[in-house]
Amino acid sequence: MNAEIIAVGSELLLGQIVNTNARFISSQLSELGINVFYHTVVGDNPKRLEEVIEHAEKRADLIIFSGGLGPTKDDLTKETIAKHLGVPLEQNDDAMEYIMTFFEKRNRKMTENNRKQALVLKGCEVLRNENGMAPGMLFENDTHTYILLPGPPKEMQPMFQFEAKPKLAKRVSDGGLIVSHVLRFYGIGEAELEDRVQHLLDAQTNPTIAPLAGDGEVTLRITAKADTEEEAWGLITPTRQEILDLVGEYLYGVNDDSLSSKLADMLIENKITISAAESLTAGLFQSELAANPGISEVLYGGMVTYNEDVKVNQLGVSRELIDKYSVVSAECAAEMAVRIKEKFGTDLGVGLTGAAGPAEHGGRAVGTVWIGIAYGQDEPLTYQLNLQGMRNTNRIRAVKTAIHHIIQLLSSKGYRKI
Amino acid sequence: MNAEIIAVGSELLLGQIVNTNARFISSQLSELGINVFYHTVVGDNPKRLEEVIEHAEKRADLIIFSGGLGPTKDDLTKETIAKHLGVPLEQNDDAMEYIMTFFEKRNRKMTENNRKQALVLKGCEVLRNENGMAPGMLFENDTHTYILLPGPPKEMQPMFQFEAKPKLAKRVSDGGLIVSHVLRFYGIGEAELEDRVQHLLDAQTNPTIAPLAGDGEVTLRITAKADTEEEAWGLITPTRQEILDLVGEYLYGVNDDSLSSKLADMLIENKITISAAESLTAGLFQSELAANPGISEVLYGGMVTYNEDVKVNQLGVSRELIDKYSVVSAECAAEMAVRIKEKFGTDLGVGLTGAAGPAEHGGRAVGTVWIGIAYGQDEPLTYQLNLQGMRNTNRIRAVKTAIHHIIQLLSSKGYRKI
Repeated sequence: MNAEIIAVGSELLLGQIVNTNARFISSQLSELGINVFYHTVVGDNPKRLEEVIEHAEKRADLIIFSGGLGPTKDDLTKETIAKHLGVPLEQNDDAMEYIMTFFEKRNRKMTENNRKQALVLKGCEVLRNENGMAPGMLFENDTHTYILLPGPPKEMQPMFQFEAKPKLAKRVSDGGLIVSHVLRFYGIGEAELEDRVQHLLDAQTNPTIAPLAGDGEVTLRITAKADTEEEAWGLITPTRQEILDLVGEYLYGVNDDSLSSKLADMLIENKITISAAESLTAGLFQSELAANPGISEVLYGGMVTYNEDVKVNQLGVSRELIDKYSVVSAECAAEMAVRIKEKFGTDLGVGLTGAAGPAEHGGRAVGTVWIGIAYGQDEPLTYQLNLQGMRNTNRIRAVKTAIHHIIQLLSSKGYRKI
Repeated sequence: MNAEIIAVGSELLLGQIVNTNARFISSQLSELGINVFYHTVVGDNPKRLEEVIEHAEKRADLIIFSGGLGPTKDDLTKETIAKHLGVPLEQNDDAMEYIMTFFEKRNRKMTENNRKQALVLKGCEVLRNENGMAPGMLFENDTHTYILLPGPPKEMQPMFQFEAKPKLAKRVSDGGLIVSHVLRFYGIGEAELEDRVQHLLDAQTNPTIAPLAGDGEVTLRITAKADTEEEAWGLITPTRQEILDLVGEYLYGVNDDSLSSKLADMLIENKITISAAESLTAGLFQSELAANPGISEVLYGGMVTYNEDVKVNQLGVSRELIDKYSVVSAECAAEMAVRIKEKFGTDLGVGLTGAAGPAEHGGRAVGTVWIGIAYGQDEPLTYQLNLQGMRNTNRIRAVKTAIHHIIQLLSSKGYRKI
């Protein structure tokens, strides 16, 4: 099955927004083993859209549209497809009811043009929209499969994932199914990780193993095709174990975990409280952690000690220590971690100091970062980074690395990562 | 002149990266008044690429390619175009020299496949690459203009902006030039802003005025075509003044300013020191401000007071005040601002408290945010927000709104915004 993804919307052609939908749908199709050979973007123009559909039909079996399902007169994707296929539009009662309830709940009057959103292609399978008003559609004829999705990512993504993808998975696996499992690594380069698991990559058939790197992280996606979920996991599990035996020390999580969500989970689950004193990262560590709901149970807070006087007078790092070792040093990072932990009365304290750039800081070159981690009564741990990026890349990398080391520390204490 | 943008790269079709190049080039072409009717993405496959080129030639005058100019055997954009157009490739000596120097400087041996990067279409105008090895090309024949750009955004963007765009500008303006000026607004909705300047939007010819909204901000781009820069500014200036007379109170900056960079500029220029006490935003305000180089002169730091005990014991907000008014209240936000300002000895203190979601906080509904701003000996100012977004959208919006109000406050004190 070969696919083309068509995004409809003049705002894409004006460069006002970026076509993240094509990326999302592509990566989802790739998990299903469906090849995507083309992405196309076309404006809100029925003539040009129809030409694009005709062209796509010549080169793809599966055509996926995003955008143009809304209530305004610019939204013409389904009307154009209906005309092109010679299939009438009819009202979907569930969708109509949902739209009317939407307006009632908000005490707003529904304008007539909203009725248009409840129209679907006759004979299609309706894809429910849990996050907006316009339903999606999957329509098949003898030659092609057409999927129509709304444009806003928050509506499109869950609709694709939970409504369209299972239907496609059934079609491509001949009644069987596809199960994917993602292992997430930090602290190891893509080349080195691939090198260590090369013999597994070379031998892969079912399950397949796909590496992907980005933003300092590396993932391995294990994908199995089988008749039942149990059988798929029977294929995945031994491969997963082989990988973990080789590079498990760098694993931080699986599937949709992020470094920040994984650390938040471990802290919340085990009621481990945390505080941080941040210099170069200026609150980014705490802010990243605070992105996770439920974190207020364990994140007490911390300080941003951007200024040296603040480090001394507010946090209590001694002037002598700074003069002797520099503000960018293992000693200062460790002291920041210990001080904030004591001051805020938490189980864990984290200190982050460094020269983010563009200028050197504390006599240390741009990109030098020290991370301090104080846990319970243990001696504080310190880690040095020598980063090569721009100011803000360096700040983000420092936060990710600190999170990675805390996860590894907690894991070494017996708290489960996965 | 009508354009099609073709991105070449299998990694785009696998969903590993998003096609930000198409967005960038589109917005640049839109400034020049060049219509973009299609974006296409195709993989590293010469047959499919050539079909895409043939199709693009039927519907566009200007075809812009990104990607596939590198040294590996997957990089085949210029080879495919050369074959398609029947134009030979020849070595560009400047590019070859640049490549050899690149390797010499790094003490690395140049491998043979790097020579391929110095090959250009015979008769093209070479576009210099200041950030990588592969040069770009502009090639014209009787019917079409072809522009070839490298894929990595950090190479492509400056090459387009400084090498390709001026050449295109000359072609579309018949020897004249195009000047754009962007006005940036916050705190006013797109609909209301458009409504207030509607008569200007209706009457526009030269200069044109293009509104754009996103992430709570609205911009107006004023674009003039003229023979000289002076003449262009003569057209822009009175329109700009008319707009500022109508909605100037919501202006925060121009062109590439962001809320955070504008506030950083105002603080650094006027040596106004700042600290913050953050609850729901958990360091995001300080971290955003710290993204700007030079900020360490004025950003002393602050506290993340996520936990109520921390607010009381570390920051010094009284338990009585919290019990009487709630942690999410004007009184608490004002007190946080005053306390952090006094504690850190800064000119400005900022307090941020609220219920980010998913649960209510301090007896206040999700999305309720209070911002406190203390400046000098003035009574602290407070602002309430009732946000409707998800947890992290709410946190970002709270930070942006706080920055906006500080900019407005400083502006009211006579510090220049622009």
